Amino acid sequence: MEESLKPMDAEQLRENAHKMVDFIADYYKSIESFPVLSQVKPGYLRDLLPDSAPDHPESLEDVLEDIRQKIVPGVTHWQSPNYFAYYPSNSSVAGFLGEMISAGFNIVGFNWIASPAATELEVIVLDWLAKMLNLPNQFLSSGQGGGVIQGTASEANLVVLLAARDKFLNRFGKRSLEKLVVYASDQTHAAMKKACQIAGIYPENFRVLNADHTSNYALVPEALSDAISNDLSAGLIPFFLCATVGTTSSAAVDPLSELGKISKVNDMWFHVDAAYAGSACICPEYRHYIDGIEEAASFNMNAHKWFLTNFDCSLLWIKDRSALIQSLSTYPEYLKNKASQENSVVDFKDWQIPLGRRFRSLKLWMVLRLYGLENLQSYIRNHIKLAGQFEQLVCSDSRFEVVVPRTFSLVCFRLLPPPNHQDNGYKLNHSLLDAVNSSGKIFVSHTVLSGKYVIRFAVGAPLTEEEHIKQAWKVFQDQATILLAGSDGSDFGASNGDII
Amino acid sequence: MEESLKPMDAEQLRENAHKMVDFIADYYKSIESFPVLSQVKPGYLRDLLPDSAPDHPESLEDVLEDIRQKIVPGVTHWQSPNYFAYYPSNSSVAGFLGEMISAGFNIVGFNWIASPAATELEVIVLDWLAKMLNLPNQFLSSGQGGGVIQGTASEANLVVLLAARDKFLNRFGKRSLEKLVVYASDQTHAAMKKACQIAGIYPENFRVLNADHTSNYALVPEALSDAISNDLSAGLIPFFLCATVGTTSSAAVDPLSELGKISKVNDMWFHVDAAYAGSACICPEYRHYIDGIEEAASFNMNAHKWFLTNFDCSLLWIKDRSALIQSLSTYPEYLKNKASQENSVVDFKDWQIPLGRRFRSLKLWMVLRLYGLENLQSYIRNHIKLAGQFEQLVCSDSRFEVVVPRTFSLVCFRLLPPPNHQDNGYKLNHSLLDAVNSSGKIFVSHTVLSGKYVIRFAVGAPLTEEEHIKQAWKVFQDQATILLAGSDGSDFGASNGDII
Repeated sequence: MEESLKPMDAEQLRENAHKMVDFIADYYKSIESFPVLSQVKPGYLRDLLPDSAPDHPESLEDVLEDIRQKIVPGVTHWQSPNYFAYYPSNSSVAGFLGEMISAGFNIVGFNWIASPAATELEVIVLDWLAKMLNLPNQFLSSGQGGGVIQGTASEANLVVLLAARDKFLNRFGKRSLEKLVVYASDQTHAAMKKACQIAGIYPENFRVLNADHTSNYALVPEALSDAISNDLSAGLIPFFLCATVGTTSSAAVDPLSELGKISKVNDMWFHVDAAYAGSACICPEYRHYIDGIEEAASFNMNAHKWFLTNFDCSLLWIKDRSALIQSLSTYPEYLKNKASQENSVVDFKDWQIPLGRRFRSLKLWMVLRLYGLENLQSYIRNHIKLAGQFEQLVCSDSRFEVVVPRTFSLVCFRLLPPPNHQDNGYKLNHSLLDAVNSSGKIFVSHTVLSGKYVIRFAVGAPLTEEEHIKQAWKVFQDQATILLAGSDGSDFGASNGDII
Repeated sequence: MEESLKPMDAEQLRENAHKMVDFIADYYKSIESFPVLSQVKPGYLRDLLPDSAPDHPESLEDVLEDIRQKIVPGVTHWQSPNYFAYYPSNSSVAGFLGEMISAGFNIVGFNWIASPAATELEVIVLDWLAKMLNLPNQFLSSGQGGGVIQGTASEANLVVLLAARDKFLNRFGKRSLEKLVVYASDQTHAAMKKACQIAGIYPENFRVLNADHTSNYALVPEALSDAISNDLSAGLIPFFLCATVGTTSSAAVDPLSELGKISKVNDMWFHVDAAYAGSACICPEYRHYIDGIEEAASFNMNAHKWFLTNFDCSLLWIKDRSALIQSLSTYPEYLKNKASQENSVVDFKDWQIPLGRRFRSLKLWMVLRLYGLENLQSYIRNHIKLAGQFEQLVCSDSRFEVVVPRTFSLVCFRLLPPPNHQDNGYKLNHSLLDAVNSSGKIFVSHTVLSGKYVIRFAVGAPLTEEEHIKQAWKVFQDQATILLAGSDGSDFGASNGDII
């Protein structure tokens, strides 16, 4: 090439980015035409792409055509209105615009000086959110605490676990690691177990407390107290409790007030993971689910789940930021600067695992400003209403049962097995899930609660409306009819078409 | 609000995103008009924004005006052609378009089924890059290894350290943690120390080996051998070595071949961190800097630094992927699916700290396709050439010295102190840095090498051309003239205006 590459020419950016805008807007217009769950087979893409990168430039048109023909079929459409799997991952116009401007600046805001606006906007917007959630003042930046954007709840859980671990190791000595005990229910997200693995907590000291149908899968305070007593008797050191508001399997809510008291008495770090359901707590009528947050040392909610902020944007608040900083700070010569040395600023690199960080507060700020609190509350309420409608539909068909009472926008249900069914409907519901997902019409996921195979129907995609709920229910009814007709109910093997 | 919110309406997205494209293109057109390093004071933004989120929606125009008036002054412009600080963080048209489409799909690709294309494109594109770098075949996905996109080099370093730690703990028992020793030079990035803190490596077992001017700040193999011998004699377990290709302070290159041999003899995990300089190794004439990579267990390079891929996009290759998976996998019921259970797919959640992950391979794929290998090589060569020109300018002015021989696109230099200067020019160069950065014309950073305060001039921003190099040098010369005239050189106090 004679002429040198101009990789960031403003007019090339303008021209090509306008094309990309139309491509993406067209994607959203046609999003219902794709199977929600990708139907490709493992390895499908290898045959469609060359073995090595090109030597010479290709055109944007060619790339966009490849995205249409080769990538989109391999995409599971999380933004489809017919997506009801896992928990949602909200995109929105505001969130998308925030991603654009963030990618436009493309700064790496590890410390204040690297872009003061990135740090300061994050501090301010996290304070805004804390107020919307009516969090205790200790979580605000004006005191000893504050909020920070992590990539994911996994990282939020990990950093507070590390802060707590190091606080206790400093007190009891490094070799006391083998005595440190973490408590959580068996409904707690797997991220907590992984955080323990990373932090080096002894696997036998990760206390997984049974939470079953008798408590609607919430952690039982007595079970916690008993476990702590046992561990203290054994000479161990209870140091960390993770409670959940809106568990992954069934949106169960652990009783924060009682758990908080137990943590306080035992001088433990009490972390509250409200990754999914935290968003609902901006509505006064749902705020009571985090009553008891006063005793928590840290609190997490994912704005990227059900709060219209594109992934990733996990919000963490902590009462004692110095604990995080003590655990996670480094300060090499090449990052020294006057603002940091005078302690007049926040350097978020010391609140997280990575050094580098994106300007993620922009998208959250834009969501809050372009929608406003009242719209956001309506958005949450509408999804909860739609989930209520779906629950009613399930209840109205005697072939099905709702497995746990619904709290937020998740409905856990199953097809009832015929009498004397061998595995209590496990394979039957597995087959129903496979059939529904293979149809491409909707995508749902599953869990197992007390041995029952349960279908999770999570409302929360930004485009979902009442008609999608009704259509989804019809897909379940139709597939159930086929399944029940095609078998005596005693042996529902997984069909060849099953993909999940 | 009567009508319900339509947060993801395709036409609203189209209309508003077109506006944002123009806003961003205009930003790039005017980027040279802003001070490169933000000149705001700590806390500046608090007074400019309200104390809480709005109840009602605001307009995009208002938000964009606020970005212009309130945010941009607090941005340090990493994409400015006059940005020479730290190492670069490249944006490009292709990278930006990749960010757009990734944010458009907004999938959370924790496992294969969550969007097969996200996983498969990542596997394929990392293979492409491995071939461009001529990495040993064991790093390709076809064998036992493979590549994965991490957020940052900090995370890349951490996950391989965890994999190594757990491998050794499995062999020697959990309580042997206190015996595990990590080796690196004192020029190694602070991320390694932080990774050790997180992984629970005993601080006294993080062996920081002196690397000074006698080896151009490269790790000396004999120093490593000696340290290992001592540790073995003391009953400790040497298990991890991190070597760097292109250190943060001075772009030093550790001698991989010799270090690799020592690692092999001692059965240690050998990690090579080429976060910055790895990009240069796509040019045949620079490939020799990673000769010896054959003995490495893992290798990292940041596509988001000097490879036109918007932040974040850190590439990690590993020879034995099962080591990562063993350390980082979780498999709760709610994520079980046929493809994962049949082991027919890659689930990248088990290769990283977080569960969720963005569709980052799209932007890397677009960079490779829209530019092609030859352009990317030219891009790297051009920056190295420009750095060479700057080095020549420094050498041509007898008031300055180049402190270490230049290898890639980083020039380390300083203003020579007058004879019998008290602190060997420390304050003098600190003052020069402050003066230059306060001018707003360019942004550079510093380090300290063997007690000398050194200015780091890192070429690598996508818009930087020859004229910017010349102008930058003039800024240094002018400020040096002022500084040297205004003082006898014995006491250069930090001025009030110093900001870094």
